[in-house]
Amino acid sequence: METEVKVKLEKHNKQLENRGRLLVKCPDKPGIVSVLSTFLHNYDSNIIESSQYSSDPENGTFFIRIEYHCDHLAEKSANMEKDFEEIATTHSMDYEFAYPNERKRSAIFVSKEPHCLMELLWEWQNGDLDTDIVVVISNHEDARPFVEALGIPYYYIPANKDIRKQVEAEQIRLMEEYKVDLLILARYMQILTPDFVRHFENRIINIHHSFLPAFIGAGPYERAFERGVKLIGATSHYVTNNLDEGPIIEQDVERVNHRDDVTDLKKIGRKIERRVLAKAVKWHLENRIIVQDNKTIVFH
Amino acid sequence: METEVKVKLEKHNKQLENRGRLLVKCPDKPGIVSVLSTFLHNYDSNIIESSQYSSDPENGTFFIRIEYHCDHLAEKSANMEKDFEEIATTHSMDYEFAYPNERKRSAIFVSKEPHCLMELLWEWQNGDLDTDIVVVISNHEDARPFVEALGIPYYYIPANKDIRKQVEAEQIRLMEEYKVDLLILARYMQILTPDFVRHFENRIINIHHSFLPAFIGAGPYERAFERGVKLIGATSHYVTNNLDEGPIIEQDVERVNHRDDVTDLKKIGRKIERRVLAKAVKWHLENRIIVQDNKTIVFH
Amino acid sequence: METEVKVKLEKHNKQLENRGRLLVKCPDKPGIVSVLSTFLHNYDSNIIESSQYSSDPENGTFFIRIEYHCDHLAEKSANMEKDFEEIATTHSMDYEFAYPNERKRSAIFVSKEPHCLMELLWEWQNGDLDTDIVVVISNHEDARPFVEALGIPYYYIPANKDIRKQVEAEQIRLMEEYKVDLLILARYMQILTPDFVRHFENRIINIHHSFLPAFIGAGPYERAFERGVKLIGATSHYVTNNLDEGPIIEQDVERVNHRDDVTDLKKIGRKIERRVLAKAVKWHLENRIIVQDNKTIVFH
Amino acid sequence: METEVKVKLEKHNKQLENRGRLLVKCPDKPGIVSVLSTFLHNYDSNIIESSQYSSDPENGTFFIRIEYHCDHLAEKSANMEKDFEEIATTHSMDYEFAYPNERKRSAIFVSKEPHCLMELLWEWQNGDLDTDIVVVISNHEDARPFVEALGIPYYYIPANKDIRKQVEAEQIRLMEEYKVDLLILARYMQILTPDFVRHFENRIINIHHSFLPAFIGAGPYERAFERGVKLIGATSHYVTNNLDEGPIIEQDVERVNHRDDVTDLKKIGRKIERRVLAKAVKWHLENRIIVQDNKTIVFH
Repeated sequence: METEVKVKLEKHNKQLENRGRLLVKCPDKPGIVSVLSTFLHNYDSNIIESSQYSSDPENGTFFIRIEYHCDHLAEKSANMEKDFEEIATTHSMDYEFAYPNERKRSAIFVSKEPHCLMELLWEWQNGDLDTDIVVVISNHEDARPFVEALGIPYYYIPANKDIRKQVEAEQIRLMEEYKVDLLILARYMQILTPDFVRHFENRIINIHHSFLPAFIGAGPYERAFERGVKLIGATSHYVTNNLDEGPIIEQDVERVNHRDDVTDLKKIGRKIERRVLAKAVKWHLENRIIVQDNKTIVFH
Repeated sequence: METEVKVKLEKHNKQLENRGRLLVKCPDKPGIVSVLSTFLHNYDSNIIESSQYSSDPENGTFFIRIEYHCDHLAEKSANMEKDFEEIATTHSMDYEFAYPNERKRSAIFVSKEPHCLMELLWEWQNGDLDTDIVVVISNHEDARPFVEALGIPYYYIPANKDIRKQVEAEQIRLMEEYKVDLLILARYMQILTPDFVRHFENRIINIHHSFLPAFIGAGPYERAFERGVKLIGATSHYVTNNLDEGPIIEQDVERVNHRDDVTDLKKIGRKIERRVLAKAVKWHLENRIIVQDNKTIVFH
Repeated sequence: METEVKVKLEKHNKQLENRGRLLVKCPDKPGIVSVLSTFLHNYDSNIIESSQYSSDPENGTFFIRIEYHCDHLAEKSANMEKDFEEIATTHSMDYEFAYPNERKRSAIFVSKEPHCLMELLWEWQNGDLDTDIVVVISNHEDARPFVEALGIPYYYIPANKDIRKQVEAEQIRLMEEYKVDLLILARYMQILTPDFVRHFENRIINIHHSFLPAFIGAGPYERAFERGVKLIGATSHYVTNNLDEGPIIEQDVERVNHRDDVTDLKKIGRKIERRVLAKAVKWHLENRIIVQDNKTIVFH
Repeated sequence: METEVKVKLEKHNKQLENRGRLLVKCPDKPGIVSVLSTFLHNYDSNIIESSQYSSDPENGTFFIRIEYHCDHLAEKSANMEKDFEEIATTHSMDYEFAYPNERKRSAIFVSKEPHCLMELLWEWQNGDLDTDIVVVISNHEDARPFVEALGIPYYYIPANKDIRKQVEAEQIRLMEEYKVDLLILARYMQILTPDFVRHFENRIINIHHSFLPAFIGAGPYERAFERGVKLIGATSHYVTNNLDEGPIIEQDVERVNHRDDVTDLKKIGRKIERRVLAKAVKWHLENRIIVQDNKTIVFH
């Protein structure tokens, strides 16, 4: 079995070498798929996966994510991208080419509770997150041992609202030093300023410990207990300047009952948080998410 | 198989004849279970099912629901209830004796959308709701045919906010005429006045078409769509004078995605609404719900 | 809201008039999507939805379902289909053109338990099943009243294993008389012979009252109870000559516990059965299912 | 928050000191609850939680689990247990007294895949498993580093069917040396002999990587893929001498589709396996499980 998995993984990594992704957003009209697929075919690319969505077949916006295989892609991609410019102009396309073997570089911010961080590290060790985790930053020392044990640099930066400005300056410096593409807030319990968020638009993923928009803000489990809900949830979303109001990527819930006190809700909630955050991160890394009008289109 | 079910049902109905339920709420202290079980044993009752909950073992409130079998219960119950008064006084108990073969009388209010009404009628025909549905009231004529086909009286009472007072007077009159114990709002889209609600404290069950406290008030599916949530829900609750803020009985959710427009959300939502309301009604009829501090204890 | 829904529905029906679906299965190689999308574009068709799957990017089989809009489709479709033949030959394609406004004709077979039948009728009345239910056949009289109330012909054909041959002859005659495209076994408790099944390959959908392959055959709830499982399930599948072994379309489960006896399992199971069957029927009617090697590819 | 949790935990541990559990199984008849609750009350015990089940109110078997608080329990328990003997004899009771502060001693057996082991260690570090994990035994070296990092002894015992007898002798010796109460098979991929199992009746918990009784035996994910199921599952159960046929404790499932190959099924399956095993272990440690006729009664 073990061997089968390894052979499979090697095959998978080999395939990634010649794998490309094209994401397009443009005004909907007949012929777009034809244009795109013919373009790819002209470069001997084989479409492996294709997902599309139109907000409205008449006068709507069209979105498509194509994953393709192309032999010798590394040698061809610059030309392909250049050639595509004319198509994009003609059809008023916003677009992005992505190459899964150019792994995104992720940073994780965490406070005291390590469960979300641990889940991400675990998925990453399993080969289920196609990213390099290049740095972990925390306002506590707790998680240092098992982060450093994996060879990942760990920075302890104490934080509170009085020193927010200098803390964020230091964090941004590290983000730049480590060339971070994606910032994951794995239960990082400090508010980020608009200035910080502006540096990483649609590149910060947060986990909020409630089923948004219920219980926006602080103390969601305490308030869920107070309200007597029968399900609790968690929400992963991109961070914007409106607290807990950014585009939702994924949500899930678990059943609770009158016997569960706030401590129980937190325990149950941790299981939801970790899986909901891991899914969002995975989809982001696989270029499966398009943000539109404070909502997400997720092609999974 | 059919025969097996019938024999089973007859056996079940026969058992109900001598079946009693005792619900108690009192300050928690050692010996309460002993007092109650000894009391029942002295009347040759056999405890069939017992569920309890203590808000806090030290100085908390104790809740218990006991279902018991007692031969010749009809002849004994008056004496039992009288004898129990002293126990209740000694231990500062709030309590209720209920007898499942004295079926509760239910009224259903409905507007245009019939799915919740249909589900309740369906469960009722299956013998899964131990109640007599004695009257259906609607501000539309749509549901009349299939309600009357089941031999249930149907009243059409047009309603809007200008005539609310006289409408409610007529509704209350009908509730009294039909000796209604439980009022089920099966997607009845009119607001009830505090005066009306006061007549039926903890006896009106509503279905709200969102996962409360998200999307309180009107247009929850429209607002869920707008927010881009990845799950939608429904909530059954007792009606109080605070709109959509009464004690929650049951909630459930279904997964949605970016392809689902408002019409799709409503379709998916109907499936959640009907099952969430049916569960709440069933538990109420089986005396499984205790309301405490705007929350519910549900022994199921 | 009501008005909005109607406007939406009319718009939807209008759109269906010019809506086509193309399903293709062929050896995978680069350029297939380009060929198909260019073909459709040449007929001024706009691709509304497209889903594809490749069993293996190298030397695998490629499957695609395209839904497109095309003005004046009715006038063009014959030519389109003719023109497509050459493409199909070139690329060794199995394919099917379908037109949603040519509604499929469905027959429902039912025995005593009506819950699956009722759910289908309910979805159909809501406009959620794009089919004409042209006939209901049963070996019991129970369901006649509410089927005929909807204007659907109802045939009572007593059945048992001794008269199977003549029963099936009569059933096949009716299927032909009513030009039935899809046969739905909504808890029809008689075994069908290979001869009967051969008439309707991949056009008979059954609901089995277990989570297949657990509890193949008779008495699944009794056996689930005996085994002490903690979840029970239901499975919708195409009928083949191997009992309960046909391609699975959809499955779902519900939680049960030690308190649930066989009667309880059946009650809980009915809720699973009706939703699992309704989903399978809906997907079939929308041409979302491709059968391959006794498995299904479901594009939903 | 942190402080709140700690205070809560200390309070919880303090409560455990004087916490007892009484599990009883006996022929059902009126008065049992009265006898038990009066017995406990006579020792000034307060019933915290009580769950009961009767297989059949007439001539059935009665099961009850009572959790109680009793000041100075350690000094009283020997007397209580002695006094209880007469009651037990009178009512033909099988029974067990358990004291949560006498933590059970657990051993974990694991092979190559560490996810179930990791989940158990994680829950244990969180204080969610009331046990001492006293030893881990594996037929591989892989898990040694993170087990020993937690201060838990790790034994590498190579195993295959040719040396089974001596391997099991060594394992039994270690079980005795470490005074193991519970043996958890966290994806231990070796078959145990009847002789081994006999040593630990109803004290070995296994996780099987399928929704039993579907896919009993080897290669369940391969066979699930082959059959084309739409859900995959996992099952935790007590080990008996009939492979994969012991009393089921817990089961759960996840949705899969035609895109998921065997490797995907295994990845998804791991998430199910780890949570299903952790629940079973937790319930066992809390004395919530009674085995009866190859089924489990789980009071949770």
